Amino acid sequence: MQEGLNVAIVGATGAVGAEFLRLFESRHFPVKSVRLLASARSVGKTMPFKGVEVPVEEATTDSFKDIDIAFFSAGASRSKALAPAAIEAGAIVVDNSSAFRMDPQVPLVVPEINLHHIKPEDRLFAVPNCTAIILLVAVNPLQKLGKIDRIIVSTYQSASGGGAAVMSELENQTREVLEGKPAEPKVLPHPYAFNLFSHNTPIGEGGYNEEELKVIAESRKILGLPELKINVTCVRVPVLRAHSESVTIEFDGPAPSEDAVREALKTAPGVRIIDDRDSNTFPMPLTASGQGDVLVGRIRQDISNPHGLSLFIAGDQLLKGAALNAVQIAEAVLARGK
Amino acid sequence: MQEGLNVAIVGATGAVGAEFLRLFESRHFPVKSVRLLASARSVGKTMPFKGVEVPVEEATTDSFKDIDIAFFSAGASRSKALAPAAIEAGAIVVDNSSAFRMDPQVPLVVPEINLHHIKPEDRLFAVPNCTAIILLVAVNPLQKLGKIDRIIVSTYQSASGGGAAVMSELENQTREVLEGKPAEPKVLPHPYAFNLFSHNTPIGEGGYNEEELKVIAESRKILGLPELKINVTCVRVPVLRAHSESVTIEFDGPAPSEDAVREALKTAPGVRIIDDRDSNTFPMPLTASGQGDVLVGRIRQDISNPHGLSLFIAGDQLLKGAALNAVQIAEAVLARGK
Repeated sequence: MQEGLNVAIVGATGAVGAEFLRLFESRHFPVKSVRLLASARSVGKTMPFKGVEVPVEEATTDSFKDIDIAFFSAGASRSKALAPAAIEAGAIVVDNSSAFRMDPQVPLVVPEINLHHIKPEDRLFAVPNCTAIILLVAVNPLQKLGKIDRIIVSTYQSASGGGAAVMSELENQTREVLEGKPAEPKVLPHPYAFNLFSHNTPIGEGGYNEEELKVIAESRKILGLPELKINVTCVRVPVLRAHSESVTIEFDGPAPSEDAVREALKTAPGVRIIDDRDSNTFPMPLTASGQGDVLVGRIRQDISNPHGLSLFIAGDQLLKGAALNAVQIAEAVLARGK
Repeated sequence: MQEGLNVAIVGATGAVGAEFLRLFESRHFPVKSVRLLASARSVGKTMPFKGVEVPVEEATTDSFKDIDIAFFSAGASRSKALAPAAIEAGAIVVDNSSAFRMDPQVPLVVPEINLHHIKPEDRLFAVPNCTAIILLVAVNPLQKLGKIDRIIVSTYQSASGGGAAVMSELENQTREVLEGKPAEPKVLPHPYAFNLFSHNTPIGEGGYNEEELKVIAESRKILGLPELKINVTCVRVPVLRAHSESVTIEFDGPAPSEDAVREALKTAPGVRIIDDRDSNTFPMPLTASGQGDVLVGRIRQDISNPHGLSLFIAGDQLLKGAALNAVQIAEAVLARGK
């Protein structure tokens, strides 16, 4: 199978789709052929891969003949409609949507954390919510320093989480506002230029929005801690492509020392410490953009609680929060197949 | 004294300075004359007040003859250098800087909360840090619902907190980035366009930056709770003039119900509830800008802690976070003098 794979990308024309093509090249992912699938309105477009312009085809249940691996990143309803056909046709599916994440039969995988959740017979794998991935890559290595009792997170989520249309809205609307024109929301419900707002997903149980409830439920599943206490406030900020998070972690005993935390994070896969107090340099979305690692800094004891530890983290939503995590899952599954 | 006051503004040409002039008009503050004071390099400028162009003069220790009230908003070192001279000349001083805030002899006042800290003989009054004011206007009314044990805050602070030069840097740099040019930080240490970063004050005790330590110490003084546990993470976001804060409050018993919280906030001075779950409308910096009230929403029980309550708030940094709070202090002091 490593000899060369027939790969499909469903949602190829989206913000995550383009990242898949770049990652296949940069990671030498063993692609023999790539099939770019999207909605009917993208048919006619082409996208460059290894010097060739590949045409975009309409994604249908018949799109998966001879496909070895299909990466889905076109929303939950598209995944629900087409992933079963892809599996039926013999493909392995790595799904970036929320469609199957909480299905107890489907492994929800952050490769740095829970590859052990993958069973030999699995053919469908879910990529977690981007905010959850970035959070857990930084938090998981701290579990060896003590039992984590509670996590409190406030997010600074970028436009890319809403896709290419939201990224364009941020740029275009900001340009208009700088020209003295009014901010006219088109894709998002609120003005976005020089503004921020509570995450634009419907409010559900207990006043938490769907994004927050996803982070809570998925974190519990990934860490295998169904009782984990976690409070999340998700906020959309006018940043283009990386998410940041202000995190306070409470242990069931005294918090580990800053030195122990630094040591644990230094050797943790997928983590890079950026924590220079002298120069006031900490994780920023601009430095996280285009990086595979989650950046971690502002490492300090919680001044309000001897059991607490505070961090500030940033990670590329399109890479580790989506396409990179998906490709890493595929690589692990291929390695399993050897 | 109410008949007409000779008023001085030190730091008149700054972002807060212009707000003072607007507030004097909109609140019918009893101004007979206004003296605009700034550094030598602003001499020659004029600023409009009640239809007249008022010249800017250099602020010196001799600037305060016949001044009844002087509003200082030119940084701590200017306040330290000039406020004693103003008081000596007979003026009441309302100081927006950090110079005297933690002096036990100086009342640090949010008029909605602690006018009782003002003693009859006081002539110098400190305006708290903007982030602390906005936080406490929303938090203080909840004290009647239970004893507050701990507050956890992550901030989304706007450019205006850094003054007019930082506001210009955000606009100009964003324009350049949209034109494809590189982001060139001039006033701030990091790129600001479509980016965010940990607050640009030096890191002090325990890894907390000076802004965070101010919010902690000042909150304790204003609320009269020297032992209050409070954890703050201050972040600068690419927003122009209002600060937002994600707040979790822990009570020493079960958290009050959402209904009780709404009721307490509905009648609280300086608070406006914006909490429409159906339309996903909550406090935003753009709606807080230009408003005197602190906006409060996302009112919900903390899903991770039965003693916890979470809120999202936004307030105009230049108004309630600075000039408005200062004018309200002056109004209270004038009322005292009747």
